[in-house]
Amino acid sequence: MTTHTYHISNKKIDCIFQASISQLENYAADNAIVILTDSKIASVYHQQLSAYRVISFEAGEANKIQETVDQIILQLLEMEIDKDALLVGVGGGVVTDITGFVASIYKRGLRFGFVPTTILAMVDAAIGGKNGVNIGPYKNMIGTILQPWFILYDYSFLQSLPHEEWVNGFAEIIKHACIKDPVLFASIQQHQLSDYMQDTELLSDLIQKNVALKFEIVALDEMEKNERLHLNFGHTIGHAIENTYQIKHGAAVAIGMVVACHLSESLSGFDLSQTVQIVQLIKQYQLPTGIEMDVDRIIKLVLADKKRAGKDIRFVLLNSIGEAAIQLIPIETIRTHLIEYTS
Amino acid sequence: MTTHTYHISNKKIDCIFQASISQLENYAADNAIVILTDSKIASVYHQQLSAYRVISFEAGEANKIQETVDQIILQLLEMEIDKDALLVGVGGGVVTDITGFVASIYKRGLRFGFVPTTILAMVDAAIGGKNGVNIGPYKNMIGTILQPWFILYDYSFLQSLPHEEWVNGFAEIIKHACIKDPVLFASIQQHQLSDYMQDTELLSDLIQKNVALKFEIVALDEMEKNERLHLNFGHTIGHAIENTYQIKHGAAVAIGMVVACHLSESLSGFDLSQTVQIVQLIKQYQLPTGIEMDVDRIIKLVLADKKRAGKDIRFVLLNSIGEAAIQLIPIETIRTHLIEYTS
Repeated sequence: MTTHTYHISNKKIDCIFQASISQLENYAADNAIVILTDSKIASVYHQQLSAYRVISFEAGEANKIQETVDQIILQLLEMEIDKDALLVGVGGGVVTDITGFVASIYKRGLRFGFVPTTILAMVDAAIGGKNGVNIGPYKNMIGTILQPWFILYDYSFLQSLPHEEWVNGFAEIIKHACIKDPVLFASIQQHQLSDYMQDTELLSDLIQKNVALKFEIVALDEMEKNERLHLNFGHTIGHAIENTYQIKHGAAVAIGMVVACHLSESLSGFDLSQTVQIVQLIKQYQLPTGIEMDVDRIIKLVLADKKRAGKDIRFVLLNSIGEAAIQLIPIETIRTHLIEYTS
Repeated sequence: MTTHTYHISNKKIDCIFQASISQLENYAADNAIVILTDSKIASVYHQQLSAYRVISFEAGEANKIQETVDQIILQLLEMEIDKDALLVGVGGGVVTDITGFVASIYKRGLRFGFVPTTILAMVDAAIGGKNGVNIGPYKNMIGTILQPWFILYDYSFLQSLPHEEWVNGFAEIIKHACIKDPVLFASIQQHQLSDYMQDTELLSDLIQKNVALKFEIVALDEMEKNERLHLNFGHTIGHAIENTYQIKHGAAVAIGMVVACHLSESLSGFDLSQTVQIVQLIKQYQLPTGIEMDVDRIIKLVLADKKRAGKDIRFVLLNSIGEAAIQLIPIETIRTHLIEYTS
């Protein structure tokens, strides 16, 4: 077990690596803990969770909505949970997003922590304090930014992770490498997904590097005015694709990164050979690089994006692998590019 | 026009007294402002609001629910409102509570300010950053604490305020006097409601005193660990009565204050003669001092109160008029007292 304590604004967040969920006892008595989790985790890990009160709900992006939040809050009220309790989200990004949001608004705020159980949640969703739910076709439009008390990494939960969820998580790892870390990029180029699935040490090292990278960015800019925006690389188009075509987040982000690479070639002098390297790496990790899309529907959702500034979109481009930059891009430029790209 | 700037944690809140709503121009361009208001205000003050985009909804405690918040958020998305906009809640406590909550969670946070249009909102609801909505029979169980940028006092809105809303607001003024200010208590003893309704100078002085008093308490304890709890005087029982019997907030708080006075006599040596003075003042301002109640229903809601600590309730008692204190009271003591009180 290794604990790193990261600092964001004036808050401390403990990251406990190679831990066991039983170590929640370091944060609260078992009877003060309420676990929020999805019904699959609740069933498969019934024994590991038996010491705690558990509220479970159906996982999946379709359930990342206010109705789920309301149902959880009503259950917390029925259980007479007061403000001294600790909420712990055990699950993937949907669970950690919902847990953070519930903890932000239940009785105006409770302490909370995460036990991420997917690669995507471990390297991305659980980190940085962003939480929230979707409304209609609009993704993450309701939420707050509030940091968890701790993130506990118990890799035994990965034993039940489906293959497609491993693939899903690697999109964010590739994103991290693209925007910030050419050494990380070279390192994942040299491996296959199966290497990380078979070698816990190799995986743990990868996860800790990605956690450190994301905390470094969030610590510089918790409120997402500058550097944190870089983490949206691939996400502006990615979110719109994800919501329109109901594909996995990682798959949508992978396609969004390819679009952003091509835009970077036009607008920030990004080298075509580096686009080729990124496309190759995305394929190497079994992620898609394109999709047939209805450009008008995509553009409508892009216009609702939180990163919008008037008629322009704050878009993340690459200068080179490992170096991102924000450009304000007119929506018409994006539309034209998407039409070319999909024709 | 007078502006006082109050400080809470590291935030500044401007209070602009004897102002006109047109002075919103000091905070944002008209086209960057979205007014949230109730349908009555939107109709009566149509002309004063004509410079702005307006989203209106039905007022009333029954609409202080998540569905209203969701409808507003969908309208903001349809209007393509981005994070640079300013939300301004123009209305009573329901409007300011909903505006603060929407601004806390829409795209993870927008700037917001208030133009309170009721006595209750002017002296209480608009101040202190608490916001939120009800869920089922549970009051204010969903929300955040986030301070507005400004509170603008335009007394011309009081011209359309119904008499019962004037009465409603004075319950919180009496509460302020009871917990913190014997001089204020003596001053309102010497007047009638009609005095304040007829004399804007007298009213403005009263409002500014109450605003200063509430800000002083909130500044000491934004997160409601100690001193801010005093503002719940009359509210623990009051909220339960309000939700059970659908009476006005001020009426419920008045009854709750009488219950708390009697409990104070038993538990903190509060003098019976001071209870008599408070009961007299409550009657003088046309508020009720009692109601026939179903004790079991009330107790169930008290147990769900946010001020609960395990099996005890953090209850606000009075030592004397102008001096409040918190005591942990077993729920059974409260039950016994309510049974005696209502028999």
